[in-house]
Amino acid sequence: MDLQLPKSEYPRVVIIGGGFGGIELAKRLKNKPFQVVMLDKHNYHTFQPLLYQVATGGLEADSIAFPLRKIFKGQKNLIFRVAKVTEINAAKNSVITDIGDISYDHLVIATGSTSNFFGNTEIEQNSMPMKSIPEALDLRSLILQNFEKSLIETDIDQKSALLNFVVVGGGPTGVETSGAIAELKKHVIPNDYPEMDLNQVNIYLVENSPELLGPMSPQAQVKSKEFLTEMGVRVMNETRVLGYDGFKLTLQDKAPILSSTVIWSAGVKGQVIPGLDLAEVVRGGRLKTDTQNLIVGYHNIYAIGDVASIIDEETPNGHPGVAPVAIQQGHHLAKNLINLIENKPLEKFKYFDKGSMATVGRNKAVVDIGKIRFQGVFAWFTWMFVHLMTLVGFRNKIIVFVNWLWSYFSYDRGTRLIIRTFAKDRSVDYRTEAPQVKDQISH
Amino acid sequence: MDLQLPKSEYPRVVIIGGGFGGIELAKRLKNKPFQVVMLDKHNYHTFQPLLYQVATGGLEADSIAFPLRKIFKGQKNLIFRVAKVTEINAAKNSVITDIGDISYDHLVIATGSTSNFFGNTEIEQNSMPMKSIPEALDLRSLILQNFEKSLIETDIDQKSALLNFVVVGGGPTGVETSGAIAELKKHVIPNDYPEMDLNQVNIYLVENSPELLGPMSPQAQVKSKEFLTEMGVRVMNETRVLGYDGFKLTLQDKAPILSSTVIWSAGVKGQVIPGLDLAEVVRGGRLKTDTQNLIVGYHNIYAIGDVASIIDEETPNGHPGVAPVAIQQGHHLAKNLINLIENKPLEKFKYFDKGSMATVGRNKAVVDIGKIRFQGVFAWFTWMFVHLMTLVGFRNKIIVFVNWLWSYFSYDRGTRLIIRTFAKDRSVDYRTEAPQVKDQISH
Repeated sequence: MDLQLPKSEYPRVVIIGGGFGGIELAKRLKNKPFQVVMLDKHNYHTFQPLLYQVATGGLEADSIAFPLRKIFKGQKNLIFRVAKVTEINAAKNSVITDIGDISYDHLVIATGSTSNFFGNTEIEQNSMPMKSIPEALDLRSLILQNFEKSLIETDIDQKSALLNFVVVGGGPTGVETSGAIAELKKHVIPNDYPEMDLNQVNIYLVENSPELLGPMSPQAQVKSKEFLTEMGVRVMNETRVLGYDGFKLTLQDKAPILSSTVIWSAGVKGQVIPGLDLAEVVRGGRLKTDTQNLIVGYHNIYAIGDVASIIDEETPNGHPGVAPVAIQQGHHLAKNLINLIENKPLEKFKYFDKGSMATVGRNKAVVDIGKIRFQGVFAWFTWMFVHLMTLVGFRNKIIVFVNWLWSYFSYDRGTRLIIRTFAKDRSVDYRTEAPQVKDQISH
Repeated sequence: MDLQLPKSEYPRVVIIGGGFGGIELAKRLKNKPFQVVMLDKHNYHTFQPLLYQVATGGLEADSIAFPLRKIFKGQKNLIFRVAKVTEINAAKNSVITDIGDISYDHLVIATGSTSNFFGNTEIEQNSMPMKSIPEALDLRSLILQNFEKSLIETDIDQKSALLNFVVVGGGPTGVETSGAIAELKKHVIPNDYPEMDLNQVNIYLVENSPELLGPMSPQAQVKSKEFLTEMGVRVMNETRVLGYDGFKLTLQDKAPILSSTVIWSAGVKGQVIPGLDLAEVVRGGRLKTDTQNLIVGYHNIYAIGDVASIIDEETPNGHPGVAPVAIQQGHHLAKNLINLIENKPLEKFKYFDKGSMATVGRNKAVVDIGKIRFQGVFAWFTWMFVHLMTLVGFRNKIIVFVNWLWSYFSYDRGTRLIIRTFAKDRSVDYRTEAPQVKDQISH
């Protein structure tokens, strides 16, 4: 059945996903002759670069997320709906959602990426992804629950599993997360858990390749590893994860690690929606598009951001899955859609690489901007400044800034509440919320 | 099986509950010859007076909760455990918990109160309580989910139910909550939901008795009703709720109200733990104690705060269930426990009433301090000041202050994310988080 939407004389652009790309595109179409329909399964935008700080108790979830309706406040040609798109019916020019079918003149897929477990369901079942706010909150609860459990655990193996934290994947997320857990160990545990033996708390960063931060400069790669090692993280390069049953992490040619907390940041894949010709899905599960972001084989279905991959002689592997690419593609597609109705020629997307950076911990970050590379305190302040500026919402900027100031001077992390059911089986735990448990039992 | 705890030469005081009373007592026993064991099912203290602001998007959950371990940082004679006490075995001087049995020399029950549905299971099943952080977050999600649902609802009755918000109970919580929802309607809906017809959004405050804020002064009662009415809340005094099936709220001698959101703040009862002689449970499900907070019939089991009721010629109905009573009883009991081991006579508890206050909305509050009564802007600032000062944690004070400043000048509410599964059946909803749903199904 069709979803009732306000009528409009203008062609309808349906955007699936309120991430960096979708938001940029929708905003650029403000006051243009389009009816813009934005769909997202959440009612908020997530600032993914700071998810790891939510997961490690540094920030409130609410301060890195922003209500999508607020972003489009006053944009008369935009309609927002919380909806989950289940299928695309390209023949009918409509998308099938859980709140009804929605027809489109132009469809833009901006669904982003999700954790890639490379088909290993055992790891998928037992490890913690960190791609959404609920996942970050679940991880925060799990880390804290395992601290609490370790105090009452009498079995030695079980206890060490509770105190071994493993991050898989040496990209920015992995580096930042393992660094943040190392800071929890250094600054929070001694105060909160005087009974705990710090020597029993181990943080591992496991990476397949010989270096960390793959796409970054050798200087950044070396320095980040140095920083992490100083902070007590056991960096294990050239280490391949074979499996994880929730207790034992098995590695290729290496001794297994007992751990109740394995954080999976080893890869992402595009969140592709059923209904499209999947022959055009390329490396990383991304939708192959031309330089106008048009999905190969379709004339009015576009893809931007992480879910898309412009395969071109200049970019045989597409662009990196980072926010600036999504934002620039959103901006570029808006221009092309306007060109389209003005019968102007479409432009080719050109990515302007502003550089990349990753933070490791207090006063420790690495920055590459073109040929300029620097690491350490100044890099750290640069990282914080850039993230504060790109964070959506003035209130969020203030709250995050206050939290960072607070943490900087107090060496403390503000938010350490176990406030939600841990979503996997281990969630059936006395520390979870009664209503949740009741609810689960009642099913 | 007994829980292993660090040995101590001193008598053990087991405190159940990290609320206002339990915390005050535990802190006062710092450096005293006791081993203090604090048990709570959460790892954080909840500042209940501001829960309604979390439920209505004004504050982050993390800024009104505080990690219990942080409160007792550096208190060497205190052990904290996250544990749920299932039973008290008075004969054996031990409490049975889900992490093992714990013996005590002195037991203090400071479990506080929970929503009282007066035995009406239908209302309990379908209405929203607001006594804990998870409940407040669930309520926030429900309110926002119902706004979203109303946009796609075609059935007229269903739609009006989604836009009718009913608060049952005219105490401070009911007054503050209905006022906060009225402000959401006035300041947030017009921006976020331009499609919505404000005339269809109704807020009801239903109260059994002829006035609001029962225990407060006539001036406060009259003025709060005036404020709420100005703000567009339909205040229904002398209205008795008979039942609520999740859709229709039935009232005695009055037309029913269709509503998907009924918030229950009509009463509380003590959170009594099984195992005690329940003959001594008095009005409001509270444990009857003597003026030394000793539960009648026991020589080493005390109760303080909401769960306790000192029945005395001076206080035939016990003291009100408010934070100051709990704090003063915690302080007083600490003194008595010290007197006990110093063989000094025990003192009788005397409550010093600092007055009471309630906020209705922007620039609108009512304050009674002894014979001094005032309402309006100054009362509102007084209310904010008192709450900021009593809020636990410096960081929390700053964050809350920043949020309040922000809301004051922007007329906005900071946090409007639907971030958790709504805990009742309606939770099985496309807007809830995938992992949660998956989890529930997998059970």
